[in-house]
Amino acid sequence: MKFYDCSTAPSPRRVRIFIAEKGLDIPVQQVDLRNGEQLSATFRALNADCAVPVLQLDDGRMLSEVVAICQYLEEVSPDPRLMGVDAAERATVLMWNAKIEQQGLSATADAFRNSAKGFKDRALTGPHNYAQIPQLAERGMQRAVHFSQRLDELFASNAYVIGKAISIADISAFLFVEFASRLKAIDLDDFENLRRWHESVGERPAFQR
Amino acid sequence: MKFYDCSTAPSPRRVRIFIAEKGLDIPVQQVDLRNGEQLSATFRALNADCAVPVLQLDDGRMLSEVVAICQYLEEVSPDPRLMGVDAAERATVLMWNAKIEQQGLSATADAFRNSAKGFKDRALTGPHNYAQIPQLAERGMQRAVHFSQRLDELFASNAYVIGKAISIADISAFLFVEFASRLKAIDLDDFENLRRWHESVGERPAFQR
Repeated sequence: MKFYDCSTAPSPRRVRIFIAEKGLDIPVQQVDLRNGEQLSATFRALNADCAVPVLQLDDGRMLSEVVAICQYLEEVSPDPRLMGVDAAERATVLMWNAKIEQQGLSATADAFRNSAKGFKDRALTGPHNYAQIPQLAERGMQRAVHFSQRLDELFASNAYVIGKAISIADISAFLFVEFASRLKAIDLDDFENLRRWHESVGERPAFQR
Repeated sequence: MKFYDCSTAPSPRRVRIFIAEKGLDIPVQQVDLRNGEQLSATFRALNADCAVPVLQLDDGRMLSEVVAICQYLEEVSPDPRLMGVDAAERATVLMWNAKIEQQGLSATADAFRNSAKGFKDRALTGPHNYAQIPQLAERGMQRAVHFSQRLDELFASNAYVIGKAISIADISAFLFVEFASRLKAIDLDDFENLRRWHESVGERPAFQR
């Protein structure tokens, strides 16, 4: 296998942490997003959506999208389990991961890509250019606050997103909180439970990746 | 189990088709989205994100998000397989389903909810109100065209999204095409391969649901 990564981007970092939690050692190739390598013909042949992460399988097949790559790694290297131990728990992990992507990570991406000067006409990843929409950046900041409230309520009773076990959903939520904090969309001191969970998972060695 | 559905909404229809392809018979409860039942305290207790579909399990646990509900049903009723037969194929199904949600279904939802008169201040599902952003509706129409081109290229060689077998990804893509056509974002006559695939899957009895 080969893992196409970019050490400065949030999406591939989710897979990097997942790989580290599993204790796997997969050869890495860095993709230079800052200089547009993801838009090159060579990279488009790997992923027509011009985005990392990508996992190349031993038979040459290419997997993109974080949840898909992690699902594959979970099946070929089951321990430790990071996507649930039975049918209901596996579904619960996918449910929370989807909510975190749609309500959390898409909000921070909207806030960042629709306001950062370097992302003019690059409001979305992919081969097509789209103009920045300032109102969408503002909405992203508001949504990040609302979703932080939702997570804060969850962590009032849960040690981890799905309850007592860490999962890919915690990795996704951690990246959301990191991004929302860096954008100053939220101040973690306003969310006591979320801050406690963030400190706890952030101390794990895999989360230093 | 109990399935919380709404016969006029696209997201629960994906689960309805999935259930019909599996040949399952699950008791259904309709949720009256037009009159805001999803925002009621009773429904919020089932899904705090105020959206259908929701699947109530026999032990009372609630699953929301299409991919999570389908993952659960796939595990408890494996035949016929709709989410892949081995690790690489299961990951490929999740990959395509994610791409269709992010690039297709979110585009049509943006186009519709940011322009329809009845959705003023309801540009997103969920408990919070967000104002419509007209530029986002326009962008959604453009993205729907781009994603239709992407699918059209795929169906030049593939009978179904992942290749030779139908999967949840075809159900998701079908709903995208239905929605994009109804919004007049696309004219299927401009996409020969996509139109042929759409006619073929649209003839399946489960897709009449």
